[in-house]
Parts: sequence; structure tokens; C-alpha cells
Amino acid sequence: MNVAVIGLGKMGGGIAQRLCNAGHTVYGFDTHAVTTHNTRIIIKKTLKEAVESVSVVWLMVPVGSTVDTVLNEIMPHLAPHTIIVDGGNSNYLDSQKRAQKAIDYELYYLDCGTSGGVKGIEHGFCLMIGGNQKAYEKIQSLCEAIAAPNGYGYIGSSGAGHYVKMIHNGIEYGLLQAYAEGFHLIKEGSFKDSHLDLATITGIWQHGSVIRSWLLDMAHDIFKHDQQLDTVSGEVAEGGTGAWTAEEAKKSAIPAPIIQASVQERARSRETGGNYATKVIALLRNAFGGHAVNKKGQQ
Amino acid sequence: MNVAVIGLGKMGGGIAQRLCNAGHTVYGFDTHAVTTHNTRIIIKKTLKEAVESVSVVWLMVPVGSTVDTVLNEIMPHLAPHTIIVDGGNSNYLDSQKRAQKAIDYELYYLDCGTSGGVKGIEHGFCLMIGGNQKAYEKIQSLCEAIAAPNGYGYIGSSGAGHYVKMIHNGIEYGLLQAYAEGFHLIKEGSFKDSHLDLATITGIWQHGSVIRSWLLDMAHDIFKHDQQLDTVSGEVAEGGTGAWTAEEAKKSAIPAPIIQASVQERARSRETGGNYATKVIALLRNAFGGHAVNKKGQQ
Repeated sequence: MNVAVIGLGKMGGGIAQRLCNAGHTVYGFDTHAVTTHNTRIIIKKTLKEAVESVSVVWLMVPVGSTVDTVLNEIMPHLAPHTIIVDGGNSNYLDSQKRAQKAIDYELYYLDCGTSGGVKGIEHGFCLMIGGNQKAYEKIQSLCEAIAAPNGYGYIGSSGAGHYVKMIHNGIEYGLLQAYAEGFHLIKEGSFKDSHLDLATITGIWQHGSVIRSWLLDMAHDIFKHDQQLDTVSGEVAEGGTGAWTAEEAKKSAIPAPIIQASVQERARSRETGGNYATKVIALLRNAFGGHAVNKKGQQ
Repeated sequence: MNVAVIGLGKMGGGIAQRLCNAGHTVYGFDTHAVTTHNTRIIIKKTLKEAVESVSVVWLMVPVGSTVDTVLNEIMPHLAPHTIIVDGGNSNYLDSQKRAQKAIDYELYYLDCGTSGGVKGIEHGFCLMIGGNQKAYEKIQSLCEAIAAPNGYGYIGSSGAGHYVKMIHNGIEYGLLQAYAEGFHLIKEGSFKDSHLDLATITGIWQHGSVIRSWLLDMAHDIFKHDQQLDTVSGEVAEGGTGAWTAEEAKKSAIPAPIIQASVQERARSRETGGNYATKVIALLRNAFGGHAVNKKGQQ
């Protein structure tokens, strides 16, 4: 298929690359200089040029007003029945409004939650897709190219993809905080003076334990290189999805105490500089998402 | 090697079976009728008979006073340098005291945290071992038989194995609660009326997502069969390890807000009957640990 990928950052660049590798014709656009090494991506100088001959536009741009700016610019130029996929972490309520607007232009709008981080470029991403089911069926070959084997699917009506991705991220906040609290206790609790080796411990846990996971694999890789973390800042940034999940819990009157507490711990880390646990979270976010980690004392 | 396995329940029976399969000579004892189908385990009628010709005694008995009762009965009869391994979820402080007592009898006492639940019988368990390092080296061939490949190791001095298993379980409480809160929101939050399919969603998440894990695999298996959970009780029982981890955090003045909150959610579930999230936790504990799940309304 002919696809335009708008936004060629860490994730967008990886998605464009996987689409090319699967034989699709990919037109790329980014407002920043494009550093991709995949020469098969046809880089265009304007948004309009990138989208003019495609049947699918895949957005991987920063959430919020950038999405609307791009949509306002491209929507009038797209042929009827063109499918727009928002692969970013947009708020599902925004996605529902945008899908409604797409109908006015006779376009389809799919909301696609994308997980897997920068590691997804190699192994394939995980895609959760909401919106018109027939439009989804038309882009299945693209999903297959982008995703890990069996790592994509149709979730439900407009907004459902981004809703489920939001909850996925809320769970992720909780998982990260759970592991991090445990590592903190092992490092600085009653066995502090024994200097228990977190590389050994996480290495054992990877095999046969109930808590084995991909995040644990990432933690093991971190601890093999450093577990003092003296030079790492414990300040953890966040996107919007964790806080949105906490709000959704409040709005729906569903208890989600640990997702809420995990969001609060990150806010606290930015006030206090954090602790061993939040240092681990910062490093894990860097490992899977490519999110920046400050060196201690760095502004 | 000649090994006595004391306690042939779900976990002990599995361990005895794996030791037999690897060619070790296993003497078994249990106060309950033994239902193991592995006829190579040599079942003995008394504790004393089970341990009289072995160099290693592997305890898989309920935590607390049962361990001391067994130790008081066997210690005077064991040959010097016999190695006792406590593979249960004993409190690490108790294990340190018992190791001290073993020295009086010229015995070795290793504390061994065992993870993997009933599924470990097939795939191998995860073993975290504390105590005398030379004694550990003598039982490595047994660990290899019991554990998943690379799923065992020496953690540190006496108590370190059970300490690290305690923290492992604290992390497990947090992971379970994080997933369960997310599933609860998907089922009963803003998309309640869309009946989003948790089997599909967890199935997608298994492939390429940041939150893929063994617990997620278990959840997927549950949701394939039932996701209404109308007949399941939301009351979640607990062993001691979660509460001990919360106490350890308090004692060491290390913040562990979500492990503490996860313990509290279980306590609350037993008061209120729980909710969708705690139903999922009860089912997951059943899936990996064989822990009982009540039917709704059952006492």
C-alpha cells in the first residue's frame, strides 16, 4: 500500500522502517531534520506532498494540539475514504471528536494505541485499534508489518484503541512502581550491609518465577551494568496517560489505588529528587521508551 | 544424591517428582495421605525413617510452628553436616534463628525461597538460596533438578534467600493489583457498555507490549474462559509475605506505597467481598499457586 508516515521520531521512524521492510511504499514527513537510515522512505518537504497520493496516513506526532494542526492542514487535501491512523498517545476523548470531524470530510479516523517502545523497531510493536471496523480491515496488512506477530487487533468503536492504551499505560505505571519498590528494599532495607546483588537476583527471577516479565528483563540488563545508580537522577517524567487513568478511575468511581499512588510517586520524585526506586523507573523508561534520564544535579 | 522431601503437597510433591526425574533417590514423608503418582518416591511412615539415610533434607511444610516441630524431631537424628533446606515461605528472621540452632547440631541450614507455583512442576521452579555458601554448592545438582534452567542461585548469608523471596512476593502483590485495576477499568469504566473483550485485549498485549509478562499470560487464559466472573468471590486470601514486606518497608523507613496499598486491598476485599479487580487476583492466585477460589456466597 501507499502510506504516509507523519512524524519520523523514535517511534514514527521505526514504524516507517517496518512498513518499508514489508514492501509498502512509504512517504515520510517531519518538521525536524530526518535522520533515518532507511533510504527507501520517500521523504517529502511538505505535509501536503507527503499525503497527496496515499490511501493511508499514519500519524506519529506529539499528542495534543500538534495532532489538530496536522489534521487541519491535511484533511481538506485527502481523497474521500482515505484512512487516517493516529498512532500516538492521544486522549481517547480527543480521538472521538477527531473521528467525528473526519466523517465530515468523508474520511476514516482510527485511534491506535502503540506499545513496545524503541525496542519495538526490531521485534515489532503492539497495536490496539479503535474506530470503523471496515477501515481497520483495510489496514490490516500495515498492522501486520508494524506489529509483533499476533500483536495487533481491533478493540472496538472510536476511542477504544486509545482508551485501552491509556489503561495499558496505567498498568505500566503500577508494574514499574512495584518492581522499583522491591529493588529499593533489597538495596537499602534490612540486608543493606550484605550488598545483595540485584543483577544475580533479577537474573534468577527471569527463570521460573511468578514475576518474570519483559520489564524484569529490562531491569536485569540495567543492573548488570550498574546498580549503585549514584549518578542517576531519581526524577521521573510522565506523559499524560497515567494521570488520565487515575482521573478515569475517579470519574467512573472504580478504585485504582495503586495506579493513583504510582502517578503520585512520580510527581513527588520531581519535587524531592526521588529515591532508589524512582531512579530505577527513570532508567527503565529510558531502556524501553528512549525517555531521557537526567544525571544527578542536572537541570 | 539421597534426599528426604518432607511435605508432599502441591509444591513439595512437585519438587520430589522433579528430583526423582533427575535420578536422585527421594524419600518422602507427609502427615497427610500421599497422593503422588510418582512411584519412584520412597514413601516413609515416619519422619525419622525418611531422614535416616540422607545427606539432604528438603522441607516443604506449612510456615510457622510446623517447621520448628519438624526440626525439633529430626535434628537430633541427622548425621553431622547434613544439609537442611527450608523451601517454604518462612520469615527470614525465623530462618536466621533456625540456622543458628542447626550449627549447635553441626548441621547446615539453607533458606530457599521457591517461586513458580504449581506450574513449576512442569517448567521448573525459581529458587533463591541463603546460608552457608559451601553447603549451597553441595546441593547445586538438586537445585538444577528442581529449578527452571538458570532459575536458581545463591543470594547471600543466612536469611537472604527468604528475605528476597519475601520481597519477590511483595512485588507480586503489586503486579497483580496493577493488572487487576486496569482490567476492572476496562470492564466497568467509560467503555462499560461497549463490552470490550479482555481476552482479545490481553491476547494483543502478550505480543510486543511493554507490559507483557507471565502473569498476563495467566490472565489471558482466564479471560478466554470467563470474563464476567459473576460466580467468583472477590475475597482474596494472603500468606504472610505481603504484609511482612509492608512491615519491612516501615521498619527500614523506605517508601513502598503500592505494595502497602496492595496488601490493604486484599484485607478490604475480605471485609467487603471485593470487586472485579480482586476477583481477577483470586483467579490468578488460583491459576499459578493453586490457591482456592470461593464461589460467590460460599463461606
